[in-house]
Amino acid sequence: MTDHRTIFFLIGNLLAALSVGMLVPAAIDLFSGNDDWQIFVASAVVTGFIAGALVLTNRGELPPLSVKQAFLLTSFSWVALTGFAALPFAFSELNLSYTDAFFEAMSGLTTTGATIIIGLDDVSPGLLLWRALLQWFGGIGIIVMAISVLPMLNVGGMQLFRLESSDTSEKILPRTAQIAGSIMALYFAISSACMLAYMAAGMGLFDAVAHAMTTIATGGFSTRDDSLAAFEKPSIEMVAIFFMMASSLPFAAYLQLTNRKFSAFWADSQIRTFLIILVLATLAMWLYQMAHLSTEGGTAFLRAAFNTTSILTGTGYATSDYGQWGPFAVSVFFILTFIGGCAGSTACGLKIFRLQVMIKAGWRYIRQLTLPHGIFVIRYNGRILEDSVANSVIAFVLIFLLSFGTLSATLNLMGLDTLTALSAAAAALANVGPGLGPVIGPSGTYASLPDGAKWVLCIGMLLGRLEFLTVLVMLSPSFWRR
Amino acid sequence: MTDHRTIFFLIGNLLAALSVGMLVPAAIDLFSGNDDWQIFVASAVVTGFIAGALVLTNRGELPPLSVKQAFLLTSFSWVALTGFAALPFAFSELNLSYTDAFFEAMSGLTTTGATIIIGLDDVSPGLLLWRALLQWFGGIGIIVMAISVLPMLNVGGMQLFRLESSDTSEKILPRTAQIAGSIMALYFAISSACMLAYMAAGMGLFDAVAHAMTTIATGGFSTRDDSLAAFEKPSIEMVAIFFMMASSLPFAAYLQLTNRKFSAFWADSQIRTFLIILVLATLAMWLYQMAHLSTEGGTAFLRAAFNTTSILTGTGYATSDYGQWGPFAVSVFFILTFIGGCAGSTACGLKIFRLQVMIKAGWRYIRQLTLPHGIFVIRYNGRILEDSVANSVIAFVLIFLLSFGTLSATLNLMGLDTLTALSAAAAALANVGPGLGPVIGPSGTYASLPDGAKWVLCIGMLLGRLEFLTVLVMLSPSFWRR
Repeated sequence: MTDHRTIFFLIGNLLAALSVGMLVPAAIDLFSGNDDWQIFVASAVVTGFIAGALVLTNRGELPPLSVKQAFLLTSFSWVALTGFAALPFAFSELNLSYTDAFFEAMSGLTTTGATIIIGLDDVSPGLLLWRALLQWFGGIGIIVMAISVLPMLNVGGMQLFRLESSDTSEKILPRTAQIAGSIMALYFAISSACMLAYMAAGMGLFDAVAHAMTTIATGGFSTRDDSLAAFEKPSIEMVAIFFMMASSLPFAAYLQLTNRKFSAFWADSQIRTFLIILVLATLAMWLYQMAHLSTEGGTAFLRAAFNTTSILTGTGYATSDYGQWGPFAVSVFFILTFIGGCAGSTACGLKIFRLQVMIKAGWRYIRQLTLPHGIFVIRYNGRILEDSVANSVIAFVLIFLLSFGTLSATLNLMGLDTLTALSAAAAALANVGPGLGPVIGPSGTYASLPDGAKWVLCIGMLLGRLEFLTVLVMLSPSFWRR
Repeated sequence: MTDHRTIFFLIGNLLAALSVGMLVPAAIDLFSGNDDWQIFVASAVVTGFIAGALVLTNRGELPPLSVKQAFLLTSFSWVALTGFAALPFAFSELNLSYTDAFFEAMSGLTTTGATIIIGLDDVSPGLLLWRALLQWFGGIGIIVMAISVLPMLNVGGMQLFRLESSDTSEKILPRTAQIAGSIMALYFAISSACMLAYMAAGMGLFDAVAHAMTTIATGGFSTRDDSLAAFEKPSIEMVAIFFMMASSLPFAAYLQLTNRKFSAFWADSQIRTFLIILVLATLAMWLYQMAHLSTEGGTAFLRAAFNTTSILTGTGYATSDYGQWGPFAVSVFFILTFIGGCAGSTACGLKIFRLQVMIKAGWRYIRQLTLPHGIFVIRYNGRILEDSVANSVIAFVLIFLLSFGTLSATLNLMGLDTLTALSAAAAALANVGPGLGPVIGPSGTYASLPDGAKWVLCIGMLLGRLEFLTVLVMLSPSFWRR
């Protein structure tokens, strides 16, 4: 038997943190005289009990993680956290089935932002805060993972972001501990800045806290049915635009900024490309709205910038139903859904660097066809790109597209219409949240979908957030062989 | 200036053959007392004139083809042939615009089988024969290309089918001439067998000739509005099933059969896999129809076998509107659309060997993730598969999927509904023909689409038939550099 104590011990620790986290909304509900505090305490007790059992039975001197165990840990910790994070939803007065509760929790922890709750305006503050907290936890989780675990697992070209070439899986734990501290401090600082900015723009304390958490996580859960449009303040939308954008840049780059390495920040071609795509897409949407929808210039610009940033970064806030903007806008948004932000941020999707590597590898391949014996070298960010990394990126893109096809076909078979099936699959895999069309569009919810479709979408969100292969590798029989 | 005389000379020869081909329907129409013979003679004169000019101005001792020239020749010959093959449609009484005529000709030469003609039952025999002839020419063209040109261009893993590893582009012409003779004789023999079988099953001579041509080409143009269903004879459908299947196997393998190498035929894993997929899909469709549509067993089996074979091989004949069979059937057919037949046949789509190589490479990649330092070798048909071939196949699949996305998005922007846009893009790229839904489904035509969409679909058909990169390589600036 392989020694899996380290995995159980770590999952126990994460669940313990989750259990403590449940006391925050409990306190809020208690303070605001809402009976819902009991469901959070109950959930915290259940979660804490399991967490304690896992920690206590698996402590002692623990062996380092093998590669396979790192894969196991990543997938199972996410599923276990979701399973318990769903408890408050399941226990609440919302009368959600466990399927719905699990969907909401998965959507939260993966920072997707798809919701099955109808009537957010009437939901207790504790539950609203819990949704925000889940996204906030998910956001920091994914950043830490992208910096520490994924580069060592060679998943989808993430090996590009290894800090040292000698890094191996055994160093995952020490490396994570070393990085996590400064990244968490930074995450907290940016979130606080976002909260203060929202308050300065006119939001109340509670809404500012909740929205800051879901903005920085590029998650997109709101406290209102009308999302940020409910506040009817352009200044609030501008704050959201700025911080959604900021959260889609690699957080490690901000650490360089604090070390005053400004040139290194701008030299990162990932950051530049992301900003260029964002600006171009915003301009296109702005001009399109003015020309075809005759929207007034200022309004059109804000709407264009807000919705483009929200979709590209995978946040999923909405201030208007862009599904109604016409086929051009819908197509552009559909493409932006797939692109996503930078690696090492909370943003989702294919990621900018994969787009860049894929385009570079594509050009090289085409040149190679005309000069079969030529030798072409591709560079990325000034360094030579190894073939294995390029192949890894291309495999990732292919798996993304095949998963998209499989998911949409499955959803279609479950009775969803073509547009709903396609956009739900894309929105889940890219962790964006809202889809297109009357059912799951920006003004709808996922509540009415059949249970089977909700579980399929949960798998999609998990696959997308954990970069596919981290999960899919476990389907291989060789994974389970000694 | 590079010496392009060889290209012009060869295209001139192909146009001359096309011009002679036009005299066949002219003779038929003249014989049957139809005035349409004049349009074929006129088209033949125009085409013959240009052909003669090209041949005469570029003859003499011609230099061998460079790799770039082989790419140029392949794409431009297909476009030039289509441009002139469209003339009879444009000149005819059908009152087609040149766009429609070009679409019909492209659909013919690429063996796609999508049509813009409404009311085939009233069309003159000459034009019906011309449509069949175009598919027949296209079919032999693609087989010769797949055996001679594509393997040397390293396109999409076709290098697997190089006969000798020392083959280079300079040998394309001699090799083509050497192979073309026996392949053409074989093609003619199989087509004649198919024609006789159709006649034995109860078809008249004219219909048997026309349908034999489009069956062997896996093209799918029929002489009737109701396609093969018009004949209402199960025996005719069975003949079609057998010959569509036979035309999706590599023609070179039949040459081995004539050399009595039976074991080599069955040892080809491409052939076995194709037949397994065909049988499994047929069984699934058979059981589904009996269980869910309560169709009688015999009818259900014939319908299942016929439509599955027709879609998988990319032929596109229809005997019933499978769009009405329900979402399960539609999803299966949609997936079959992409798969296609064997390389070196007239069938279209991704091709069986690419599916096999992709799955093998995928497994290896996943095993590599869990054992980063392990060395894994993949074999295909008993031989070690080089990484460059596997990468080439994966690049092909990715380009196929990206083209599918781009095409459907473009068609959607042009105002086609989601299902029509998706299925039209798939049907064009995989050279299947009919799409799904009321507009372009098995009982519809492409006539009502906007002109822009027709041109986009022409590009799609060309890309699919010429294996994408043969065309796309010309988008690279380096292609045009000396």
